[in-house]
Amino acid sequence: MTSHLVTGIGELVTFDPTHPGPLGLLTDAALVVQDGRIAWTGPTGSAPACDARTDVAGAAVLPGFVDPHTHLVFDGDRSAEFEARASGARYTGGGIAVTVAATRAADDETLRANLHRLAAEARAQGTTTLEIKSGYGLDVVTEQRLLRLAAEVTSEVTFLGAHVVPQGVDRAAYLDLVTGPMLTACAPLARWADVFCEPASPVAFDEDESRAVLLAAARAGLGLRVHGNQLGFGPGARLAVELGAASVDHCTYLSDADVAALADAAPHGGPVATLLPGVELSTRSPFPDARRLLDAGVEVALATDCNPGTCFSTSMPLMIALAVSAMRMTVAEAVRAATLGAAHALRRDDVGHLRIGARADLCVLDAPSHRHLAYRPGVPLARTLEIAGGVGE
Amino acid sequence: MTSHLVTGIGELVTFDPTHPGPLGLLTDAALVVQDGRIAWTGPTGSAPACDARTDVAGAAVLPGFVDPHTHLVFDGDRSAEFEARASGARYTGGGIAVTVAATRAADDETLRANLHRLAAEARAQGTTTLEIKSGYGLDVVTEQRLLRLAAEVTSEVTFLGAHVVPQGVDRAAYLDLVTGPMLTACAPLARWADVFCEPASPVAFDEDESRAVLLAAARAGLGLRVHGNQLGFGPGARLAVELGAASVDHCTYLSDADVAALADAAPHGGPVATLLPGVELSTRSPFPDARRLLDAGVEVALATDCNPGTCFSTSMPLMIALAVSAMRMTVAEAVRAATLGAAHALRRDDVGHLRIGARADLCVLDAPSHRHLAYRPGVPLARTLEIAGGVGE
Repeated sequence: MTSHLVTGIGELVTFDPTHPGPLGLLTDAALVVQDGRIAWTGPTGSAPACDARTDVAGAAVLPGFVDPHTHLVFDGDRSAEFEARASGARYTGGGIAVTVAATRAADDETLRANLHRLAAEARAQGTTTLEIKSGYGLDVVTEQRLLRLAAEVTSEVTFLGAHVVPQGVDRAAYLDLVTGPMLTACAPLARWADVFCEPASPVAFDEDESRAVLLAAARAGLGLRVHGNQLGFGPGARLAVELGAASVDHCTYLSDADVAALADAAPHGGPVATLLPGVELSTRSPFPDARRLLDAGVEVALATDCNPGTCFSTSMPLMIALAVSAMRMTVAEAVRAATLGAAHALRRDDVGHLRIGARADLCVLDAPSHRHLAYRPGVPLARTLEIAGGVGE
Repeated sequence: MTSHLVTGIGELVTFDPTHPGPLGLLTDAALVVQDGRIAWTGPTGSAPACDARTDVAGAAVLPGFVDPHTHLVFDGDRSAEFEARASGARYTGGGIAVTVAATRAADDETLRANLHRLAAEARAQGTTTLEIKSGYGLDVVTEQRLLRLAAEVTSEVTFLGAHVVPQGVDRAAYLDLVTGPMLTACAPLARWADVFCEPASPVAFDEDESRAVLLAAARAGLGLRVHGNQLGFGPGARLAVELGAASVDHCTYLSDADVAALADAAPHGGPVATLLPGVELSTRSPFPDARRLLDAGVEVALATDCNPGTCFSTSMPLMIALAVSAMRMTVAEAVRAATLGAAHALRRDDVGHLRIGARADLCVLDAPSHRHLAYRPGVPLARTLEIAGGVGE
């Protein structure tokens, strides 16, 4: 197979423990890609000969961003709801029904066009691994359609039949559906199952309901994820620990016991705390206390939560900038959370770093250092480096 | 001269009072550019014949953004200071000396390359009018160099000799210089003068010093601008009103009397309140209370304050998103503040709107509505529409 040498890397973030610091940082570096994998990283002067070569002229190179929480398969616009919140209305989750109605009514071609446009938009900003959830179908046929479409873009497909109880459907009957026939129909199409565990929302699921959803999904062979502790204190984080979920997402309202449970589980592969600061920005809500989680030893990930209601952004660089400026993370912590931490939230060891053997998913910055991702907010600095021999997702 | 028709405008923001609403909004619209000016706007079906044509396929079109506060001529990197703040250090203005030293040491070619790169970066994101300040020279020769370089990019050149008292220079002696020989040397090269009026900063200027700076500048024929009320309560806003400044910038700490003074002066062309939310984001500071100003009837502008210390962003779309999400402005107010309001802060009537006769400075979005500037934070949606017959700045 062809080997490809990337030279002129002003700063290379590898997370390789044989390189310096928490980021495994090299300056004046090069790397070799072979068979779509990282085959070598090191100083430019020691680079081996290769069949092809790309020079990045002093730019910083990082692992491509991993976005472990998105809702990219939908139709319809909720900018009116956004404007209403901009005039003071509070988010309760009720707007999801608007997207469900539009999504059910849309044909596959429309949904596919929306999905591929957003996935390309994310990739253009340096995201090389995306998790994508269903959850705007909420009936068997539409949930299956959404999962099949998501699989066109990623292997990280999540069944979110338990997003909300759909309008006009009995709660108990829907719970039976989502843990029974809908799960049976959807489990073969997904890697993960997720639930919106939020007693504060009238449309989401309480502790017993969420446990039932997650236990059924685990029995069906799916990995577990939880939307929890977004709108108020609740059982989400504790359930994620109890049931061995890979991630609990949002984590805006955590008790001391929640943080302790996440910290205790962390050394044993417990849930990653996936923070979604774009949601707090877009809904004008308090940001999660990232420092408290990091200081307790919990692995933190960042994600966009890209969705038409509460954060219609595909920008991982914005999430890094918000993590530093609004959540008091250091730049290194934020970059790790958007790459390695996010990969852990998907239980992936082949992405989110550039150690030997990793997928050659590369993000290149129009800047000399990873620090510029936070130092230069809003400026489109990041893009996916497309090279021969690299594999796309 | 050639006339140019732009068609397929899904939504057109004109600020033309003959079109509907506060934004003068048309849907399914077209516009005609002749001699670099807007010659016609209206519904697609009524568009006149032209010599050339561009179709924007349903995109939203706005007046190009006006960024009325930037510091784009400098050398040196302050990402280390940024990282220190990310670990808890507070901004006092002291870091400006780092940029002054690097800028004085840089040759014109280096400064020019930095400036043109940043100006192009801003233009690529939809900014078509930029104000640019000096203020990293703080000696006669270097301030002149910075003003001459700024004039390569814009006619909105601001002399900011009174940025800070340079290290190792006596305060009174520097005040004599900046109101005497330095002003005489620099006034012919600038349209505006500005002062960092901030008693809370040990390096900035107090009320009497600021008044002396501004009065001397007015006598030298320069229009006035003020950096005021950024780090604490102070005299900046009141001075701006007293001396007829076009704008007072920052406005984070305003007393009731300050707001009343700005509101009283507003109907008589008093100072625009130019808010710089990227600074608050990057320095982890409280955001200005935009609602209080708007509700009092003060004209508000948005700017990036692009500079290497407190906000190294050229992104007016980010400022719009922050205005809505962090400063409780409506989307329409934020779009106006980034275009028409910002033009007023520069006392320009030829930009910031698309009324007949305006400069044909156009921003096109990869989105169907201006609302997406706030609804889709961090996503690079805006770009300057380059058409034949348009004039660049």
